[in-house]
Amino acid sequence: MHNKEIELLIPELRQEAGLRLQKMVSSMEESGLDAMLLASNANVFYCAGRFFRGYVYADRSGRRIFFLVRPNCFGEATDVVAIRKPENIPAELERLGIPMPATLGLELDVLSYSEIERLRKVFPDATIGNASEAMRRCRMTKTPYELKLMREDGMHQMAVYQKIPQLYKREMTDVELQVEIERMLRLEGNLGFLRVAGNLMEINLGSVICGDNADAPSPYDFAMGGAGVSPALPCGACGDIMKVGQTVMVDMNGCFNGWQTDMTRVWSIGDPGRLARDAHACSRRILRELEKMAVPGVAVCDLYERAHAIVEEEGLDDYFMGHRQKAGFIGHGVGIELNEQPPITPRNRQPLLGNMTLAIEPKFVIPGVGAVGVENTYVVTIDGLDNLTPFPEEITDLL
Amino acid sequence: MHNKEIELLIPELRQEAGLRLQKMVSSMEESGLDAMLLASNANVFYCAGRFFRGYVYADRSGRRIFFLVRPNCFGEATDVVAIRKPENIPAELERLGIPMPATLGLELDVLSYSEIERLRKVFPDATIGNASEAMRRCRMTKTPYELKLMREDGMHQMAVYQKIPQLYKREMTDVELQVEIERMLRLEGNLGFLRVAGNLMEINLGSVICGDNADAPSPYDFAMGGAGVSPALPCGACGDIMKVGQTVMVDMNGCFNGWQTDMTRVWSIGDPGRLARDAHACSRRILRELEKMAVPGVAVCDLYERAHAIVEEEGLDDYFMGHRQKAGFIGHGVGIELNEQPPITPRNRQPLLGNMTLAIEPKFVIPGVGAVGVENTYVVTIDGLDNLTPFPEEITDLL
Repeated sequence: MHNKEIELLIPELRQEAGLRLQKMVSSMEESGLDAMLLASNANVFYCAGRFFRGYVYADRSGRRIFFLVRPNCFGEATDVVAIRKPENIPAELERLGIPMPATLGLELDVLSYSEIERLRKVFPDATIGNASEAMRRCRMTKTPYELKLMREDGMHQMAVYQKIPQLYKREMTDVELQVEIERMLRLEGNLGFLRVAGNLMEINLGSVICGDNADAPSPYDFAMGGAGVSPALPCGACGDIMKVGQTVMVDMNGCFNGWQTDMTRVWSIGDPGRLARDAHACSRRILRELEKMAVPGVAVCDLYERAHAIVEEEGLDDYFMGHRQKAGFIGHGVGIELNEQPPITPRNRQPLLGNMTLAIEPKFVIPGVGAVGVENTYVVTIDGLDNLTPFPEEITDLL
Repeated sequence: MHNKEIELLIPELRQEAGLRLQKMVSSMEESGLDAMLLASNANVFYCAGRFFRGYVYADRSGRRIFFLVRPNCFGEATDVVAIRKPENIPAELERLGIPMPATLGLELDVLSYSEIERLRKVFPDATIGNASEAMRRCRMTKTPYELKLMREDGMHQMAVYQKIPQLYKREMTDVELQVEIERMLRLEGNLGFLRVAGNLMEINLGSVICGDNADAPSPYDFAMGGAGVSPALPCGACGDIMKVGQTVMVDMNGCFNGWQTDMTRVWSIGDPGRLARDAHACSRRILRELEKMAVPGVAVCDLYERAHAIVEEEGLDDYFMGHRQKAGFIGHGVGIELNEQPPITPRNRQPLLGNMTLAIEPKFVIPGVGAVGVENTYVVTIDGLDNLTPFPEEITDLL
């Protein structure tokens, strides 16, 4: 365990550190940034392999300094400088012989207005650019080490999903089932915290939705809503007893090591009926087609369009990605944060790149029954999508 | 259940809605703001009694409009206006005959730089002030209805803490005990999400710390650290087996209805030794003194000073609020967010106000043993502190 160290400074991870820094340099070049100063948890974690309170400074020449406010317990590594506050950074850069950047990237989409205003004053002569965007692009494709971690997440998540039939008891509420799944996740090593990008998205360890709750409109941009049990967290399971004829969609947290997989499977209480079974089969058909089609160079929107064409062909459009309220995407990038680039939307013309990791989730809401569909987390390869969550996809009856 | 409604528009809560709005108006007057436009989850929840994607507009004349982006399912209440994007707001205000504000408060400490820049452009002629500050002040004292909800939280949290001795098994790790407590919390109705202010504080459902892990330096501003099990969430339980002679400090999530109580108790595995017992008794002595002393008008820093004086008198300063790394406070406001105003620090000269809710947590780290001390959530009254978490405070042996 390297809890107390900056992971990416330990010798075994030197190559990984180099790869990530190289990607950041490319991203700075594309964005016209001379340097970036990062403070958000997700980006600090990406750059250092652990969280700390402080800043990561990286410039286009490939220099990278960890400015630590707390904890200050990392010894005397050459890349680590203890500071009391961000106002100390320019003097430290000067001491290290690093030139002031003419154009500095700050995390404009993540840090608060007050935080950015403070940092602007620390670099009064710099033109400020958006490091949030540059880092999203950089983190969008994964290194082999990141893929290894995500593959491990998938193994853990599948090990827990395997146990779900044993957790179900008759007359159970959706919340009660979710609580037992949460416990199994935590005992399997799940960190118990779901890292979502954007300060307006709040969720506990995931969502178990059943029956008409699948169609409850949500304030959040999750693919499926659910009313939740409280207006204080209007999302997911609602506390109703799960009934015969309903489906039980499980979309729970896959974060065991800082990265995460995103995976959905459906069980049922008895027979959910023909329409639900057909829509579920349609979701699987979509995944099979996209698995072959999604190679580097294909436009993201083409994935959406192909999925939608299949849905229309099967006459299931009314139920696709929601019934009363529809989500405008069928998937998203996934990594340190649940919702990374790219979103798979009808308008996103960006091309797929090798080693992007995508959660693809063609789902349907069947009124009176619940949600159906499968979600897997994939890596984009030249041979198509490689599935990090290869787990049986059939609807299994819990009774 | 009013999941689908804006709670503060339902007739039974009209008085509560009026009280909160009145406090917001006072806060605007103190801050010199003509109006506020709020979008953060915590403030939208405070104003509406539920979350939605959108904005709350409130002005000094006491007008309040809910501008909803999604979900758009709230019917035709007069205070609710559906919009597609914030750029629609000025035309809607005009339509409603509401004058443009000369000075507009935005949540500068919470919303991202990009979000604030967008909103500034929507109100190009307004001078922008800081609504984060105004809302923190407003939410710092609680209404009777909020206190009722927090009292309910305390009851639920105590009901779960009551069961902790039955959850312990020999050779258990701290994480395993935490997982069983989490399950009990969730079955008791805990929402499974800990709402913390500030985008750099991350935690799962709380912390169970034991032995030397209590002294692991943390990047976060929590009173006690803990290394966590992963550099991806370096906080709390570390996965070690709990051993004879150690203390087990439990500081877990008390959020059952959107508000929360914050409560810490300590158990032990066998006898934790004289120093731990003395320090724990000192924590209880501090609480008893502060309970009497903390009346409206007393400066917050006086609470800190009195606690510190007792600690010095008992010769326990080396262990107070951490050993290797110390926290700079002994408590904090608590409510919708875990860390509200005021922080109880040596420099905070603000006076206590009636109906402030304070979590007070004089804690000690005893090397080799663990953390000791008690945390209660209190309401400030003219008779001193009223305890929302009146639960036995002794260290109980789990063996």
